[in-house]
Amino acid sequence: MVRVVILGQGYVGSIFALGVERIKTGELGYYGIPLQNELPIKVEDIEIVGSYDVDKNKIGKSLYEVVKNYWDDKIPEALKNIIVRKGIHLRSLRNLPIEAEGLEDEMSLKEAVEKLVEEWKKLDVDVIVNVCTTEAFVPFGNKEELIKAIENDERERLTATQVYAYAAALYAKERGGAAFVNAIPTLIANDPAFVELAKESNLVIFGDDGATGATPLTADILAHLAQRNRYVRDIAQFNIGGNTDFLALTDKERNKSKEFTKSSVVKDLLGYEAPHYIKPTGFLEPLGDKKFIAMHIEYVSFNGAVDELVITGRINDSPALAGLLVDLVRLGKMAVERKEFGTVYEVNAFYMKNPGPREKGNIPRIIAHEKMRMWAGLKPKWL
Amino acid sequence: MVRVVILGQGYVGSIFALGVERIKTGELGYYGIPLQNELPIKVEDIEIVGSYDVDKNKIGKSLYEVVKNYWDDKIPEALKNIIVRKGIHLRSLRNLPIEAEGLEDEMSLKEAVEKLVEEWKKLDVDVIVNVCTTEAFVPFGNKEELIKAIENDERERLTATQVYAYAAALYAKERGGAAFVNAIPTLIANDPAFVELAKESNLVIFGDDGATGATPLTADILAHLAQRNRYVRDIAQFNIGGNTDFLALTDKERNKSKEFTKSSVVKDLLGYEAPHYIKPTGFLEPLGDKKFIAMHIEYVSFNGAVDELVITGRINDSPALAGLLVDLVRLGKMAVERKEFGTVYEVNAFYMKNPGPREKGNIPRIIAHEKMRMWAGLKPKWL
Amino acid sequence: MVRVVILGQGYVGSIFALGVERIKTGELGYYGIPLQNELPIKVEDIEIVGSYDVDKNKIGKSLYEVVKNYWDDKIPEALKNIIVRKGIHLRSLRNLPIEAEGLEDEMSLKEAVEKLVEEWKKLDVDVIVNVCTTEAFVPFGNKEELIKAIENDERERLTATQVYAYAAALYAKERGGAAFVNAIPTLIANDPAFVELAKESNLVIFGDDGATGATPLTADILAHLAQRNRYVRDIAQFNIGGNTDFLALTDKERNKSKEFTKSSVVKDLLGYEAPHYIKPTGFLEPLGDKKFIAMHIEYVSFNGAVDELVITGRINDSPALAGLLVDLVRLGKMAVERKEFGTVYEVNAFYMKNPGPREKGNIPRIIAHEKMRMWAGLKPKWL
Amino acid sequence: MVRVVILGQGYVGSIFALGVERIKTGELGYYGIPLQNELPIKVEDIEIVGSYDVDKNKIGKSLYEVVKNYWDDKIPEALKNIIVRKGIHLRSLRNLPIEAEGLEDEMSLKEAVEKLVEEWKKLDVDVIVNVCTTEAFVPFGNKEELIKAIENDERERLTATQVYAYAAALYAKERGGAAFVNAIPTLIANDPAFVELAKESNLVIFGDDGATGATPLTADILAHLAQRNRYVRDIAQFNIGGNTDFLALTDKERNKSKEFTKSSVVKDLLGYEAPHYIKPTGFLEPLGDKKFIAMHIEYVSFNGAVDELVITGRINDSPALAGLLVDLVRLGKMAVERKEFGTVYEVNAFYMKNPGPREKGNIPRIIAHEKMRMWAGLKPKWL
Repeated sequence: MVRVVILGQGYVGSIFALGVERIKTGELGYYGIPLQNELPIKVEDIEIVGSYDVDKNKIGKSLYEVVKNYWDDKIPEALKNIIVRKGIHLRSLRNLPIEAEGLEDEMSLKEAVEKLVEEWKKLDVDVIVNVCTTEAFVPFGNKEELIKAIENDERERLTATQVYAYAAALYAKERGGAAFVNAIPTLIANDPAFVELAKESNLVIFGDDGATGATPLTADILAHLAQRNRYVRDIAQFNIGGNTDFLALTDKERNKSKEFTKSSVVKDLLGYEAPHYIKPTGFLEPLGDKKFIAMHIEYVSFNGAVDELVITGRINDSPALAGLLVDLVRLGKMAVERKEFGTVYEVNAFYMKNPGPREKGNIPRIIAHEKMRMWAGLKPKWL
Repeated sequence: MVRVVILGQGYVGSIFALGVERIKTGELGYYGIPLQNELPIKVEDIEIVGSYDVDKNKIGKSLYEVVKNYWDDKIPEALKNIIVRKGIHLRSLRNLPIEAEGLEDEMSLKEAVEKLVEEWKKLDVDVIVNVCTTEAFVPFGNKEELIKAIENDERERLTATQVYAYAAALYAKERGGAAFVNAIPTLIANDPAFVELAKESNLVIFGDDGATGATPLTADILAHLAQRNRYVRDIAQFNIGGNTDFLALTDKERNKSKEFTKSSVVKDLLGYEAPHYIKPTGFLEPLGDKKFIAMHIEYVSFNGAVDELVITGRINDSPALAGLLVDLVRLGKMAVERKEFGTVYEVNAFYMKNPGPREKGNIPRIIAHEKMRMWAGLKPKWL
Repeated sequence: MVRVVILGQGYVGSIFALGVERIKTGELGYYGIPLQNELPIKVEDIEIVGSYDVDKNKIGKSLYEVVKNYWDDKIPEALKNIIVRKGIHLRSLRNLPIEAEGLEDEMSLKEAVEKLVEEWKKLDVDVIVNVCTTEAFVPFGNKEELIKAIENDERERLTATQVYAYAAALYAKERGGAAFVNAIPTLIANDPAFVELAKESNLVIFGDDGATGATPLTADILAHLAQRNRYVRDIAQFNIGGNTDFLALTDKERNKSKEFTKSSVVKDLLGYEAPHYIKPTGFLEPLGDKKFIAMHIEYVSFNGAVDELVITGRINDSPALAGLLVDLVRLGKMAVERKEFGTVYEVNAFYMKNPGPREKGNIPRIIAHEKMRMWAGLKPKWL
Repeated sequence: MVRVVILGQGYVGSIFALGVERIKTGELGYYGIPLQNELPIKVEDIEIVGSYDVDKNKIGKSLYEVVKNYWDDKIPEALKNIIVRKGIHLRSLRNLPIEAEGLEDEMSLKEAVEKLVEEWKKLDVDVIVNVCTTEAFVPFGNKEELIKAIENDERERLTATQVYAYAAALYAKERGGAAFVNAIPTLIANDPAFVELAKESNLVIFGDDGATGATPLTADILAHLAQRNRYVRDIAQFNIGGNTDFLALTDKERNKSKEFTKSSVVKDLLGYEAPHYIKPTGFLEPLGDKKFIAMHIEYVSFNGAVDELVITGRINDSPALAGLLVDLVRLGKMAVERKEFGTVYEVNAFYMKNPGPREKGNIPRIIAHEKMRMWAGLKPKWL
C-alpha cells in the first residue's frame, strides 16, 4: 500500500487519480506506466488519501466532482470519498482566471505548515505529489535562508511548492520517513537547501519537473546525433497547448522557469552549447490538453553534408505525466523503505526534465531507464 | 595503417574515399564519424588501395575521375592514383540504366574468385568494404551449399556480394586474416553459411546493411516509447530519393530485401509486432542523394490517451553511410588483430540495420553505442 | 425534394446517409458541405430512396444495420426503412476479403441493366450516386463499343461503374431526365462514350473521382506557387490509410487508376510536367478512415534560392467526400431541371479530381469554386 | 526604364539589386518574379539609381561592397556605381547590434526631408522602395497630424518609414508623379493620412508589408477550407529565422506590428475569428535568411469529423520579397503613368500582407492574382 496526497488537483492530478481508480476497477490497463506492474508495490496498491488545491471552485468538493472537469466518461465511485482541502497559493494563480484561496490568507506560513503536517499525520501519508501550477521562483541555495524565510513569513520570497516541500520535511521528520515528488519546474531536488533538509529529515525528494512531452524525446534524439558525431547547428522547439499550464506560461516569469529546465538538455547531451530556441510558445484554447509540438534540428554529417529533421506531434500532456506519477509514488515508498533520504539521481535521471541533485546533468533517457530499473531491483532490458 | 578495398564505386564509396582524403589534407573535420579520432588507428591511417566496379564507364578510370560524378568542388589529387578495376555483377545492375561488365563475362566464377584473391594479395588488403547496389538474393544457410554453388558456377543462385564475401574468406585464409564489411542488405553476417566459413578462414565479417537514414532513428524512438510502456498502434515510414540506390529499389525484388531489414526493428524493440508500413517508397530524381523521409507513429499513453508523432526530414544518404565506414574499416582491422573471426555483434548492433549473427536482434542504438565503445576499448559516455 | 440512390454502401455512402439524416433530426450542422444551405434545394430535401451493394453481408440488411459498421454513436431511425439491394460487382471486390454477390451471377448484364432500370423507375430516382470501390478499367472512347460490350455480355471488358452508368442513361431516357454522380476514378465524365450517350439520353453526369484529400489541396498550393512564378523542382505525395479503399488500392491495377487522376493536376496547374511521385502508398489498418498524408515540394524562388514545403495531416476520408455528395445530388437535380445533359464542367472543376469532359483540365479550386457558385446561381464570394 | 531608389540596404534590398543585375547579365532567369517578363516594362529596364541606409558600416560604401555581406558568389560590376547614402533612422535600429547614423542627427526632420527630395530630384527617381527594418509605430489617421509632427520635429512620434513616405509625397508633388512601395508592416497604404496626402501629391503608394513567407500560403489554405465550409477550430503558426529582421522582431513592440498584419487574414478569409496564434516566434542565428516555419490547423469536416493539417518548411525570406519588388517597381511606374494616385487595391491585394486602403481586407491570393493581372492589362490565367 502507498498512501498518496496530491498537491494541486488540476488536469494531471485528476487524470492520475482517475487512471489509478480505473485500473483498480479493471477497465484500464497499464499503458503509459513505464514500470507497469513489475514493482513489488502494485499499481492497485496506490491509495489516494488526500488532495489539496487553492481554487475556490474546487475546495470542499469531492475528487469525483473535480475530475468531471477533465473527463467526459464514467468516473469510479471511489473518488467520491476524497474531499479537496485548502492548500497554499502564494501568488501561484496570479494572472490566471481563477479565484484563489489559501491557508495563508487566514494564518502565518508557519502555522499553515503546522496545519499541513497535522493533517498529513492523520492521513498517514507515504508520498506527497506536487503537481501545482508552474511558478516563478528563486532557489534558496542554503537551508538556513529557507528556514528564516518561513519563520519571518516572507511571502514574496517563497512559492507554494517551496512551502509544501518544507512542510513535507517537517512531516517526514516527525513520522520517520516520507517522500515528496516534485513534478513541476521549481527547483527542489536541485536546490541544496532542500536536499540537505531532506537528508536530515528522513525525506526522499524526487525532482524536478516531470520528463514528459517534447523534451525527453529531444534528449534521445540529441543523444542519437551525438553518438554519430553529427554536429548540431541549431535546434528550434515550439509547444502550444490549451490547458491551464500553457495559460500560466504566457506569464513571462513562469516561462523562464520552464525554459531553463528544457534547455539544459542540449549541453548535457551534445557536450557543447548548440544554438537553440526551446520554449513553451503559446496558449491556444481549443487545443486543450493535447498540445501541438514542432521541432527543427539541423546538423552536419560526414563530408560536410547538412541534414534536417522536423518533428511534429499532438501529445496529451496530462496523461503522460500522470503515468509517470504511478511509478514515482511507488518508487518513493521504496526509497523511504530503503532509507535513501535526500534525492535519488537514478530515479530522477529518467523521470525528470531537470534531474537533481544540482551537480548531476542529463543523460540519454534510454540509458537512464536501464539504470533506474537496476536501482528498482529489476532486470535491465538491454544492458 | 588500414589498407582498404572498395567494392562498388558508387555514391557511398566515392564520398567515403573523398572524405578520407579531405581529412588527410586537413580541409575536413571528423563530423559524421561516430568514434572520431578516439581509436588507436587514426582516420589518417586509412589507405584506400583498390576499387572495383562493373559500370563500363567507371572501369579503368581513376577514383579522381569517378568522384567527379558526385562532388562539384575540389578533389584531392591522391585519388588519381587508384584505378577502378573490373568486379563481378551477376545481374546486380539489371533494370538500371548502366552498361555492366564483369569478370564473370570472361571466366568462370571460380576463376573470377581466384583472380580477386590474387589481386588482393598483391594489394595486401586489410579490409574489404562492400557498397555495391542493393540485390535480390536468397541466403544460403549452410556452407556446403555455398561452396557447391561457386564450384558449379551457379550464376542464377549467387549475387555479387555473396561471391565477393566468398572470395574474402579465401583471401583471409591465405593471408592469415582480413575483414569484410557488408554495408548492403544481402544477408552475410546473418547467413550462417558465411559466418561459419569466416570463422574457419580467419575472416571478420561486419554486417548487414549500414544503419543510416530513418531506421536507426526509428529504433531509438521506438525504444523511447517502449521504455514508457506506450502502446504503439501503428507506424508508417516513407523514403524517397533520387540516387541510384532508390532507382534500384523500384525493382520489387530488391525492395523486399530492404523492407525486411527495415521492419525487423519493430518487434525487436517493442516486444510485439505493431502494425507497420516501412519501405523505401519511390524514386524522384531531383531529390538526388538527399532523400525525403516521413514517418508517422500513433501510440496509446496513460488513461487511454492517443498521441501522434510525425517525423520528416531531408537526409544525405551517402555521407551518412560513408561516415560509418570510416569507423568500420578501423574496427575491422582491430578485430582481425584480436583474432575475433566470424562476426562481431557488438560492432554490428550499432552500425548495422540488421546486426548479425542471425540469432541476435536489434537493441536501442543508444545502448548499442555504449557497448560498442567498450568493445573498442573506449570509455562509455553515459554508462 | 431530391430522390437519391446510392451505389456501393461502404464508408462514404454510409456517412453520407447518416449525415443527411442527422441534419434532418437537427443534431448536426452544415460543416463540410461547401454550399451549406444556400441552394434552392435544401439539405433537408434530400431523400435517400435506395441503396445497392455486392457484399453478401450487406445485401438485404437495412441501412441502419450497415451504418453501424462505420459509426459508434446514435443512428437515426429513418435509416431502418431502406434495405440494401443486390448490385453488380464484375470483379470489383477481387482481392478484397469480402464475399461478393451480384445480379450478373444470375442473369446476363443486359438483363441486370433492365432490372436496375425497372427498380429505379419504381423508386422514381432523381440522382444516382456511385461510390463503389476503385476499379481497374479501360475507357471506351466511343458509344458503339460500349453498347456492343453490354449486348455481348463482355464481363471482362466492363466494370461495375460502367454498367451502372449505362443503366443510368437508359433510365434517364425512359424517365426524361436523371443525374449520375461518379465519385470514383473510373472515367465516365471523361469518357466520350458516356458523355455522348448521356446527351442523347437526358442524363447529367458529374465526374470523375471526388476531389477530397490531399489532391485538391495540392492543386491550390501548386497554383499558389505558379502565380509567384516559382519553379517546382519536385513533388512527392504519400497517402496511407486503413479503410477498404486503401486495401483495394494495394492492387496494382486499381492503384494506377488513382495515380492517373492524382497526377494530372501537376501539369494542368504549373504548365510544365514537374517531376512528381503522387500515389496512394499503402494500407495500414489501425489508421482506419483517417488517413495520414505527407507531401514534400521543393521549388526555386528569386535569385536561385531553393525553398521547401512539407505538408502532413490526418484527414477523415469518407466524411470529406460525403460532404461533397450533399452538394452534388442537389446540383445534379438542378442540372436536370435546366436540361444541361451530358456533363457540366463548372461543377466538375470544383468537385472532381479529374473534371470531365476529357478536353478540359484542372484549374485552381479556389477559382473553380467561384465559377461553380455562379453556375449554381449564387453570388461569388471574392470575384 | 524605371529609376529606383532603395531605402534600407539590408538583405532584401541587396538581393533585389543583385538579382536584377544578374538578370541583366543573363546569368539568372525570371523565377520568383510573379509577372516574369509579361509587363510592357521589362525586368531589364529596372535601373537602381540610389540607395539609403543608416548603418555606419554601409554608408559611403558601394552596393557591390554591401551585397558581399549577403552573397558568396560573383557580384555584377554594375553595383560598384551606386554608393549608399545616409538615410533616416529614428530609433529604428534600437536594440540591434548596429551603430546607426542618420540625417536627423545633423538637422531637423524637415531639413532632412528637404535634403532627400533634392537628392531624389537629381536622381530623377520613379519609384522609391522601402525595405527598412520593421518598426514599432502608431498610424496617423489624418494628414494634418502628420504634417504637424514633421513641422514640430516630433522624433518620438514618427518612424523612419513615415518620414520617408512624407518625403516621397513632397517629391512626387514637385516632380508631377512618383511611386512609394512600402514592403514593411508600418501602415502607410492603410493610413488615411498618407493615402490622402498621396492623392493630392501625385504619389502612388503600394503597401503594406510584402506578402511573402507563411502568411500568403496560409491565406490560400484558409480559403481552401472556407470554400469547403470546413470549420477551423484553431490555427498555430510559428516562424523562426536568423536574419536581422528576426532579430529586430525579438523586440516586443515591433513584433506586435508584425502580428497585426499576419492575423488579419484569418477573419477576412474565414468570415469568423478562428482562435489563432500567428506570430514571428524567435531568432536563431544559424538559420540565416532561410527561416523555419511550422503551422498547425485543425478543422471540422462533414458529420463532425475532425481533421488536422501540419505545414512546415524552410523558406528563403529575402529572395521571396525581392522577387515581388521586381514586379512592384514596374507596376508602380505603370500606375504613375496612368495617374492612379493614392493607393491601388488591385496591386496590394496580391502583393501585400495587409493590403491598403484600410477599408479593404484580404481575399484569397489566387483570386487576387487574377484581378491584379487584369489591372496590369494582362490576360487572367484561369478566370
